[in-house]
Amino acid sequence: MSTTPAPFTADDYRARMARAAEAAADAGLAGLLIAPGPDLVHLTGYRPTAVTERLTVLVLAAGRDPVLVVPALEAADAEHAVGAPALTLRDWTDAKDPYAATAPLLDAGGRFGVSDNTWALHLLGLQQALPGTSYVALTEALPMLRAVKDAHELERLAAAGAAADATYEEILKVRFSGRRESDVAADLAALLRQFGHSQVDFTVVGSGPNGANPHHEAGERTIEQGDMVVLDFGGLKDGYGSDTSRTVHVGDPTPAEQHIHEVVREAQQAGVDAVKPGAACQEVDRAAREIIEEAGYGDLFIHRTGHGIGVTTHEPPYMIEGEELEMVPGMCFSVEPGIYLPGRFGVRIEDIVTVTEDGGKRLNNTAREMAIVE
Amino acid sequence: MSTTPAPFTADDYRARMARAAEAAADAGLAGLLIAPGPDLVHLTGYRPTAVTERLTVLVLAAGRDPVLVVPALEAADAEHAVGAPALTLRDWTDAKDPYAATAPLLDAGGRFGVSDNTWALHLLGLQQALPGTSYVALTEALPMLRAVKDAHELERLAAAGAAADATYEEILKVRFSGRRESDVAADLAALLRQFGHSQVDFTVVGSGPNGANPHHEAGERTIEQGDMVVLDFGGLKDGYGSDTSRTVHVGDPTPAEQHIHEVVREAQQAGVDAVKPGAACQEVDRAAREIIEEAGYGDLFIHRTGHGIGVTTHEPPYMIEGEELEMVPGMCFSVEPGIYLPGRFGVRIEDIVTVTEDGGKRLNNTAREMAIVE
Repeated sequence: MSTTPAPFTADDYRARMARAAEAAADAGLAGLLIAPGPDLVHLTGYRPTAVTERLTVLVLAAGRDPVLVVPALEAADAEHAVGAPALTLRDWTDAKDPYAATAPLLDAGGRFGVSDNTWALHLLGLQQALPGTSYVALTEALPMLRAVKDAHELERLAAAGAAADATYEEILKVRFSGRRESDVAADLAALLRQFGHSQVDFTVVGSGPNGANPHHEAGERTIEQGDMVVLDFGGLKDGYGSDTSRTVHVGDPTPAEQHIHEVVREAQQAGVDAVKPGAACQEVDRAAREIIEEAGYGDLFIHRTGHGIGVTTHEPPYMIEGEELEMVPGMCFSVEPGIYLPGRFGVRIEDIVTVTEDGGKRLNNTAREMAIVE
Repeated sequence: MSTTPAPFTADDYRARMARAAEAAADAGLAGLLIAPGPDLVHLTGYRPTAVTERLTVLVLAAGRDPVLVVPALEAADAEHAVGAPALTLRDWTDAKDPYAATAPLLDAGGRFGVSDNTWALHLLGLQQALPGTSYVALTEALPMLRAVKDAHELERLAAAGAAADATYEEILKVRFSGRRESDVAADLAALLRQFGHSQVDFTVVGSGPNGANPHHEAGERTIEQGDMVVLDFGGLKDGYGSDTSRTVHVGDPTPAEQHIHEVVREAQQAGVDAVKPGAACQEVDRAAREIIEEAGYGDLFIHRTGHGIGVTTHEPPYMIEGEELEMVPGMCFSVEPGIYLPGRFGVRIEDIVTVTEDGGKRLNNTAREMAIVE
């Protein structure tokens, strides 16, 4: 369960940066400006200890060597990134204008893709330093850049999924009744770490009425006999994400509870069945939502059906009405419909699914039938 | 040491939002767009559980009621913010265009201040939805908005500083020699929490050569007899920050070590002495740097002298050459010169200082002479 994939090398990052620069050129862009965060981790392996107002930006353009502009104080850290040998570091000192330092690296009349999470401070600084440039958000310009995973990345996502499955199998053995949600959440976090996660992002334990709020995390409520309990947990293992949900029941469920759980299970299966190359992402949402609407609970499925996963546990693409992006082999995302009865309980079932030539393949493989816990 | 100030009320936030809207109008702006992060916390008390690609933005304009645009799924959380009664919540569902939903709240030809950390994705979305609007970074347009603290905020910053002082007094009693930096860092974190911090942001323990890297945090190096050790620690207490540094010595220092420490101590005192209303922030940097340059170590003081502090431990204004912003009573910032000898050791001394009518007043008050630890 705690498989350790081979580490990425500078060559892996060199190849990724070259592909990104080519994709930018193909899309008619003069280049890409990559900010600290998941894009920078994906392309260079570099994650600054803190994201601050001091400009750090990777400049990629086809036919030119990648340049990472960093504050002088952070140059030593950046040099230690696995991808550092594949790029040129250029630092600017605290007292100088970082936008003036970056401008010579950019085509003054070019259109650039920028990381979605680039600070407005920096975008405005660049717009001011180079008034002839224009910008587009990276996920809009190149939605496939991080969305489509290569074989090495898929291996990591599968390993993270297996660790989440092992966590679920173990949590079924702990006592729920009489303990607080936060106690079970702590068990989930410990298990994720035990099975190789280096980072735990969320451990939702939504018991009884708390399960009806899809945004609830875990609180001080004591779990009781007869509760439905939504479990939704994940984090990062070897740099790639897990995210899975199962809804369990403390003691025997009522027929009504059983029925609603079954509707969600069928909706989740329908969502997974709708995964195929060339179909739009929104088809996954439609397929899952149709089942829930037909059962009469359409108004109680109050969120989108899924989101991408990779170096983060929550990223584009989105499985949502209106998302016409086509599914491509190598994409990975959650399929997680739910039904939420205010004041009573909620049910959500979630797997990570990857697109293959033959359709969707789950990276979570524990039973989706409602488990009974103590 | 663990004073608990009275909690902020909706009226406090109402007053802050009104002042911010007036300041924007005075600066010729049509309004302010406030993103999740310190600006939103400061103005509303609301901190979303995660900052995602889903638009959350507070719209402030003089003469209009504040509106907080939130994703539907997060509306319930936002309603619980202390400042929520002072604003109108407006949600948009996952499937709709959030920029189209926000546009009617904005003057289509206006110039707006935006939080520095607003995602480029959102700024580009607004620029596209309203091509006649223009934008400026909030710290550039209204540098005093968060920089100048009111009496309630100063009370919190003083309490956080006192807790950091108590932490330092206690850490002098622990054993350094033979333990790892990470062990002493864990002690610092535990003490900050013991003295009332809810969040620990950093616990730097830079022993021997590690102290010469001002970006070093704490590692596996075992601290030895004869080491200089830079300690730099802080976090949030009751929502406001602490950040202080002292450099201690394990056993007796050499005359050279003693001399360099004394130069830094004098430089730090000179920086504090340069604090006065009406003077430029860069004067603090110049005063501290002059002492270090005169002692012949100018090339080894490789960072700016200070940074602001408030609802974060690291924010504008900056005490740096080129920063002509005038000091105003109520501003709070660090004064933290250092000397870094590569491969040997580093020395840094840091206090939080607030500007008063009479000059600088320290919020950290432990001895700045070099302490000897075991």
